[in-house]
Formats: sequence, C-alpha cells, structure tokens
Amino acid sequence: MTTETFDGVSVSTKASVYFDGKCVSHAIVLADGTKKSVGVILPATLTFNTGAPEKMECVAGGCEYRLDGSSDWVASGPGDIFSIPGNSKFDIRVGEAYHYICHFG
Amino acid sequence: MTTETFDGVSVSTKASVYFDGKCVSHAIVLADGTKKSVGVILPATLTFNTGAPEKMECVAGGCEYRLDGSSDWVASGPGDIFSIPGNSKFDIRVGEAYHYICHFG
Repeated sequence: MTTETFDGVSVSTKASVYFDGKCVSHAIVLADGTKKSVGVILPATLTFNTGAPEKMECVAGGCEYRLDGSSDWVASGPGDIFSIPGNSKFDIRVGEAYHYICHFG
Repeated sequence: MTTETFDGVSVSTKASVYFDGKCVSHAIVLADGTKKSVGVILPATLTFNTGAPEKMECVAGGCEYRLDGSSDWVASGPGDIFSIPGNSKFDIRVGEAYHYICHFG
C-alpha cells in the first residue's frame, strides 16, 4: 500500500534539482505544518548527505541503498521505507526510476 | 510576480517523467477540482504535443518556445505565460532550467 496523494497541502511550484536532474523534487507542507518532499531519482548511482534525519518512502519503482558505514546494498520497492540518521549520508542506485516521499525528522 | 506555492491542493506522490527525465512533473488538484501540474524542464530541445489546450506559466528560470506553424522562437521567463491550442504541439528549448505550472483547458 503506497501513499498515492497528499491532500490539503501547500506545494512549491519550483522544483529542487540535484545532480544535473538525476533527482528532482517538489517541497510540500502539510496542513499541520509538517514539511516533506515528493520526488524521483532517475537511473544513476548517487550519494546524498543528510542534515536532519530522513525517512525515504518508495511510492513507485525502486532502488538499492547503502547506509553510511555499511557494505550492504538493500533493495527498496513500493511501500518500503528506510531511515537515514541526521548528519550522515547514503548511497543510492536506481536502474529505472525511484519515486519517493522524503519525510524529515 | 510568480506563483510560488499552491495551497490546499492534492499532490500526486509519483512524478510524471518525460523524455528520459528532461521533463519531470507532479500533478496537483486544486480544492475546486481544477487539475494542473508543476514541473521542470532541464537543458534540452523538446517537442510536446497537446491534447487539451494548455497554458504554460514560468515560475523560475526560462525557456524559448515555438508554436506549431511558427518559425519564431519566443523567450519566456518568470511570470510569463504562453498558450498552446488543443491538439497541437510546440517546441521548447531550455538552456538551464525552466520551472513551470501547466494549466489545462
């Protein structure tokens, strides 16, 4: 069961573009003030740094990720969530597309 | 003056990816049921076909576009809107990034 829509939110019209467009996201703010983003990662192997802790929830497609300090790549598909500590980093590799919700904190 | 956010909307968590990721958008539905999308086009020259008529509103960056049957490229920047008839097409070329709202109908 994946989260197909967020209702009653504020969405930023300008996208955030990372890694020359290999990652594109739009920021949203829920009615209660919670900030999230919805985005997609295209075929690539990338390293992301975190400030706040993040939870990545897959809504379509899939990826493999590797947390900092780990040598294991772990698959993540629709409905799966993985957590990244704050002030850390993770590697992600995508073969087709990884559509995600990023939850902060 | 550009539209920086849409409030009280429903946003699709899964992106629409066109032209191998040169265009990425998210669909939104306003409180009154109106459907729009917010997206970005990355450096490329692309041709889009329309079904319903569309209005493209630039929120950041810029592009040049050429409507079907015209030989003129026209610049479009933040706050600018251009209209494309239904069942038509247009060329668009982007040097850096073109962040847009697509209004239908």
